[in-house]
Amino acid sequence: MDFSLSPEHAELQERTRVFIREKIIPLEGDKRQTRHGPTDEFRRELNKLAAEAGLIAPHVGVEYGGLGLSHVGKAIVFEEAGYSLLGGLALNISAPDEGNMHLLEQVATHEQKERYLRPLASGEVRSCFCMTEPPPGSGSDPAAMKSTCVKDGDHYVINGDKWFITGAEGAAFAIIMVKGEDGAATMFLSPMDAPGIEIVRTMDSLDQGFPGGHCVVKFTDLRVHESAILGELGKGFRYAQVRLAPARLTHCMRWLGAARRAHSIATEYARHREAFGQKLGHHEGVGFMLADNEMDIRVARLMIWQTAWVLDQGERGGTESSMAKVVCSEAIWRVVDRSVQVLGGQGVTGETLVERIFREVRGFRIYDGPSEVHRWSLAQKIMRQGANW
Amino acid sequence: MDFSLSPEHAELQERTRVFIREKIIPLEGDKRQTRHGPTDEFRRELNKLAAEAGLIAPHVGVEYGGLGLSHVGKAIVFEEAGYSLLGGLALNISAPDEGNMHLLEQVATHEQKERYLRPLASGEVRSCFCMTEPPPGSGSDPAAMKSTCVKDGDHYVINGDKWFITGAEGAAFAIIMVKGEDGAATMFLSPMDAPGIEIVRTMDSLDQGFPGGHCVVKFTDLRVHESAILGELGKGFRYAQVRLAPARLTHCMRWLGAARRAHSIATEYARHREAFGQKLGHHEGVGFMLADNEMDIRVARLMIWQTAWVLDQGERGGTESSMAKVVCSEAIWRVVDRSVQVLGGQGVTGETLVERIFREVRGFRIYDGPSEVHRWSLAQKIMRQGANW
Amino acid sequence: MDFSLSPEHAELQERTRVFIREKIIPLEGDKRQTRHGPTDEFRRELNKLAAEAGLIAPHVGVEYGGLGLSHVGKAIVFEEAGYSLLGGLALNISAPDEGNMHLLEQVATHEQKERYLRPLASGEVRSCFCMTEPPPGSGSDPAAMKSTCVKDGDHYVINGDKWFITGAEGAAFAIIMVKGEDGAATMFLSPMDAPGIEIVRTMDSLDQGFPGGHCVVKFTDLRVHESAILGELGKGFRYAQVRLAPARLTHCMRWLGAARRAHSIATEYARHREAFGQKLGHHEGVGFMLADNEMDIRVARLMIWQTAWVLDQGERGGTESSMAKVVCSEAIWRVVDRSVQVLGGQGVTGETLVERIFREVRGFRIYDGPSEVHRWSLAQKIMRQGANW
Amino acid sequence: MDFSLSPEHAELQERTRVFIREKIIPLEGDKRQTRHGPTDEFRRELNKLAAEAGLIAPHVGVEYGGLGLSHVGKAIVFEEAGYSLLGGLALNISAPDEGNMHLLEQVATHEQKERYLRPLASGEVRSCFCMTEPPPGSGSDPAAMKSTCVKDGDHYVINGDKWFITGAEGAAFAIIMVKGEDGAATMFLSPMDAPGIEIVRTMDSLDQGFPGGHCVVKFTDLRVHESAILGELGKGFRYAQVRLAPARLTHCMRWLGAARRAHSIATEYARHREAFGQKLGHHEGVGFMLADNEMDIRVARLMIWQTAWVLDQGERGGTESSMAKVVCSEAIWRVVDRSVQVLGGQGVTGETLVERIFREVRGFRIYDGPSEVHRWSLAQKIMRQGANW
Repeated sequence: MDFSLSPEHAELQERTRVFIREKIIPLEGDKRQTRHGPTDEFRRELNKLAAEAGLIAPHVGVEYGGLGLSHVGKAIVFEEAGYSLLGGLALNISAPDEGNMHLLEQVATHEQKERYLRPLASGEVRSCFCMTEPPPGSGSDPAAMKSTCVKDGDHYVINGDKWFITGAEGAAFAIIMVKGEDGAATMFLSPMDAPGIEIVRTMDSLDQGFPGGHCVVKFTDLRVHESAILGELGKGFRYAQVRLAPARLTHCMRWLGAARRAHSIATEYARHREAFGQKLGHHEGVGFMLADNEMDIRVARLMIWQTAWVLDQGERGGTESSMAKVVCSEAIWRVVDRSVQVLGGQGVTGETLVERIFREVRGFRIYDGPSEVHRWSLAQKIMRQGANW
Repeated sequence: MDFSLSPEHAELQERTRVFIREKIIPLEGDKRQTRHGPTDEFRRELNKLAAEAGLIAPHVGVEYGGLGLSHVGKAIVFEEAGYSLLGGLALNISAPDEGNMHLLEQVATHEQKERYLRPLASGEVRSCFCMTEPPPGSGSDPAAMKSTCVKDGDHYVINGDKWFITGAEGAAFAIIMVKGEDGAATMFLSPMDAPGIEIVRTMDSLDQGFPGGHCVVKFTDLRVHESAILGELGKGFRYAQVRLAPARLTHCMRWLGAARRAHSIATEYARHREAFGQKLGHHEGVGFMLADNEMDIRVARLMIWQTAWVLDQGERGGTESSMAKVVCSEAIWRVVDRSVQVLGGQGVTGETLVERIFREVRGFRIYDGPSEVHRWSLAQKIMRQGANW
Repeated sequence: MDFSLSPEHAELQERTRVFIREKIIPLEGDKRQTRHGPTDEFRRELNKLAAEAGLIAPHVGVEYGGLGLSHVGKAIVFEEAGYSLLGGLALNISAPDEGNMHLLEQVATHEQKERYLRPLASGEVRSCFCMTEPPPGSGSDPAAMKSTCVKDGDHYVINGDKWFITGAEGAAFAIIMVKGEDGAATMFLSPMDAPGIEIVRTMDSLDQGFPGGHCVVKFTDLRVHESAILGELGKGFRYAQVRLAPARLTHCMRWLGAARRAHSIATEYARHREAFGQKLGHHEGVGFMLADNEMDIRVARLMIWQTAWVLDQGERGGTESSMAKVVCSEAIWRVVDRSVQVLGGQGVTGETLVERIFREVRGFRIYDGPSEVHRWSLAQKIMRQGANW
Repeated sequence: MDFSLSPEHAELQERTRVFIREKIIPLEGDKRQTRHGPTDEFRRELNKLAAEAGLIAPHVGVEYGGLGLSHVGKAIVFEEAGYSLLGGLALNISAPDEGNMHLLEQVATHEQKERYLRPLASGEVRSCFCMTEPPPGSGSDPAAMKSTCVKDGDHYVINGDKWFITGAEGAAFAIIMVKGEDGAATMFLSPMDAPGIEIVRTMDSLDQGFPGGHCVVKFTDLRVHESAILGELGKGFRYAQVRLAPARLTHCMRWLGAARRAHSIATEYARHREAFGQKLGHHEGVGFMLADNEMDIRVARLMIWQTAWVLDQGERGGTESSMAKVVCSEAIWRVVDRSVQVLGGQGVTGETLVERIFREVRGFRIYDGPSEVHRWSLAQKIMRQGANW
């Protein structure tokens, strides 16, 4: 058992920390930010800075310009990057691109990698992942998928409605998941400018950090050549797991960084603002919130680290990643909610970054499987296997 | 003991409910809404509808166009109005105007009432209440007030900085609270276009339902005639209590209505959306959230009713209103947060009204005294007097 | 709407309060108490004191020696009685006798009332209620009942196993609920000394306030004449509801009194014990617990009062009593758990009464339907009917 | 970073697990148990079994018969031992003896070790630790200590009152902490049969697993030779920390094992008991409790492991052990409380071991510094140093 960081990870942690503090945080006030993230121009500038710091796409293999980080390595670097809401974008490790890179690296052919992964990893283009559907289609329950593909010679014809497609607006390509006639799901790769893809609208969302926003996308007789199948026909649900388990965990990492930021801001406020005769944080009602924040942060980090380590051992880590997702998303939420409370009126305004973080992280208790779905799935395992050791 | 509504209150409840459902909810999608509430034109139309329904400013005395509702009457009507986020504005019972009308009615001279209360009650003009200050001034702790008035002949010269001044932009007049040279606070009335009043900026806020937003206001040598003192010199802190205790409670009423709306939307979703083989709400993980919502709603309503009844008996009701504020703001928050969760991904988007409600109500755990200040004040009483009966 | 007590209820409240303080609390240290409540001798002395104060069995009709209290009246008196763990026994309003008296009064024949209700109301005898069964029989789910009755001429022959039969040891008679051959349940009255009734053992229990404890009871060919049917054949489940809904609520009342007692003891400790330079309760960490206690107490009381009032209007009040049961059992638990915490080490010892109260009330989140069963039942109603107003 | 156990720890874990399952659990029903733990005879038998399995006093150095376990090693073994409420006693790692052995090993002279540590480690004798005092003395706040020592030649004369002295009845010797005339505290060693030591009474306690119970002890002119000073004069408070930080953590370890036991029992019940048409655990209301249990168990374990690892690095680990204490004591409590709830009525009776565990662990939120004191201390650090990384 060893809770220390390897020298390499410690160096990366420090480098990322310094990079975020010195290069990224000073840019947080840049005006080139919309209701759905930075402009493309600004995003590329951020990527350039990360590349100069040797930190671009660090989770991707060296062959594609990254550092080939292990899951533990990601845990260290992504948390630090998340300390700024621009950090994940700068390092090119934000959803959905980060998960798409991971999936492409695992499953795509060499040709697909060259065409799609390489420019994605460098930040030249963005991508999206088309899985979720509006009611009565697949939301938390993927089995309810309604979108279809039908074989037509050496092509497939895709029809269906998707929504919550993060980053669709402005994406160069999509990974599209649909059901075949046999009920098995398949993933396809397609450029977004192919005929038959329509971005119906961008949804209004509480969060505002995702370039391109969350979109409603319609496929009407989209024709895709069979060479654009990602991995094998009929293995879509399996690949969704390949993508989701680590993607779930990288969300935990980035948002833990964001929670730390909120806590830092609240702490500095509590250390300097006076009320009722003493510093705010010397009132136990406030000081206890700060203490609880630090405990929640530590708990979340340990859950991430252990799960990352399990994945690094080559295990699927389904139980660990479900648990980490629930524990982290709820702990992170509490940290940010308390930070708002400590700041008083300012907490619900743009006077500090905490309000932005508050808006960004609420969705995390829902994305990648709501807490309720994970609890249900954990309970099913317990009912099958009995209590865990 | 009697938990029934008087026939008059029952009729008003039904009338308000029908009014909101038939006249106001259909207008919720009206485009004349900004990041800080409806446009003035739209607001006046809403007021007109309420006036036609005999529901405008119902808390104000008949002499000024209202219905002279008791606190219990307000509890009934305001909750119903709050069921739409436009309801409070339509009835002209939103903060800060509602509290200002109450204060003017209690304290102002006949002349002041004619000049300020009458047009405010009819919705002809809006107002603001200038008390809160940026650090190191008065936030939760009013004693820290830094703004000052200095007597100069039959005038007072006012200087200072205020913020979180809701509705300042577009307000016709302000109630301004400042400290005199003896440390006692006084309230003044002033038109907003008087020389020496500057709206520095509008703060970015999580909520977006308040016309005029929350503003930073600067007073530089603002001269106010002594006839514009509201009530008596040096009684500002006392009047702040006159205003705050009921204002706290009317917040509870309106936001309880909003919480009910969120719960209704979540409930209808859970009754119709299927996942994992059955209606969402038949999963206990979801159904229990709905059950908890109904319990929290009931608890909040009972706390409001009892406090309103105590105030109607002529008591100050300080303990009751502190308790009601904490219990309601936290119960309402839980209801809305659960409603978001039930809706899944949609909960954090503009697909339903719940996201808007979520943004509006977070501040309520902070406004009118954060939960921590009320708990502290309740604890002080217990330490002085021992356990309550 | 009226939150005041009628003069009669106010007088009864005061009389009960004085009675408990002056007559009962001084006897709390009496040695005639076992691991399962006071001895019979001591219990009769307590009843005698209550009778002298005009407070014996106040929920029973005047004809049987009581005061014929309404549900609201019970709410007032039972809470006061619960302030001492001996109070309920003194007034003869404890489970299961209180609920049995209520059921007999509603359903029994005149003859049955004379034989069973009269001596029960006076405290001359105790009774028990035989419904719950060990696995795989009926626990939270009454439909799983396994015990049976078979008609044999003008008698019924009863067989089956029951447990958690509170007060069986020492009871003069039992109400026995079993299923007939058609699956419908029937209630029977039987003396406990009838052949065929065996008290197998007394269960070890966390609580220790119930005379007779919780017993395992076995029926082997118990013969009961048809005149001993309580109410009508086959209506057992309906009568169980007649008994349970108010019984649920009277538990809330008594245990609210007990929670107040715990809170009082904790408050006095926090007001006088010093630590880290000031009175314990001036530390916000402790003071906030006291404030939360008072809020929980108030919430619980309001839920009880409203439900009692609804029952007094002649309504079934199923939703209200389910909600009251969940809210009260959980609020009361929090109050007592916090009181333990405030007392520090002493909280988990017999140095104060709080440890006893802690042991008594844990079961209340389970008895009379666990919180989970009530939440489920509330959710079912919401799914059927939509959101409540 | 490495979350795996060393082969040696893995072997010890398995050995302890098998030992508890095969040798100790079968003895849990042994009648030689009182309201305050096993009889001395039974305890010695348990120790003998542990010695045969090579598991007696494993935290003590090899020189004194133990295995010289690191803190991480203790984390592994103590959790397994805690799976039975008799496990800690069997391995001779229960409070207060475990902490006393640790302190003696760190601080005592060779002679003191031979006289006191050796027979304590082998289980030949028991000991107690006399620090806590009744009001107005030292409870959570050690600075309030009232007991005194006065030098008299080469002796010290000790006077004072102590309580919550676990295991005093039947202990062979005591470590006694008192204040000198200069206000500095000193620890002394004394046989319990020395003139001047009186066990006034054994306190009634919710827990019942500690041999000797929790006692009130009075020192009247107890004379101790200066050779019986433990460590150095005036360093009592420092040694208290030497003892408390690890003792706090070993409590976490043992009670985590107990929580796992409660969870296992509840899980097996939920897997087999049917209600409302399906296995209990397939109701989400129950299944979610089981899932939450497993998450809480994992969180607690990670906090323990990390803290143990930090201590093994030679650091004081004050922050880590405060956090671990709060997180573990509260997580363990939730696990056990939920296990009670899952079991329904049986949960509050002796039908399963869960009720015993429930009684044992409630105190842990109070012992070794209540949660409130640790939160306060963590908050103080944050106020001094700012947010932790």
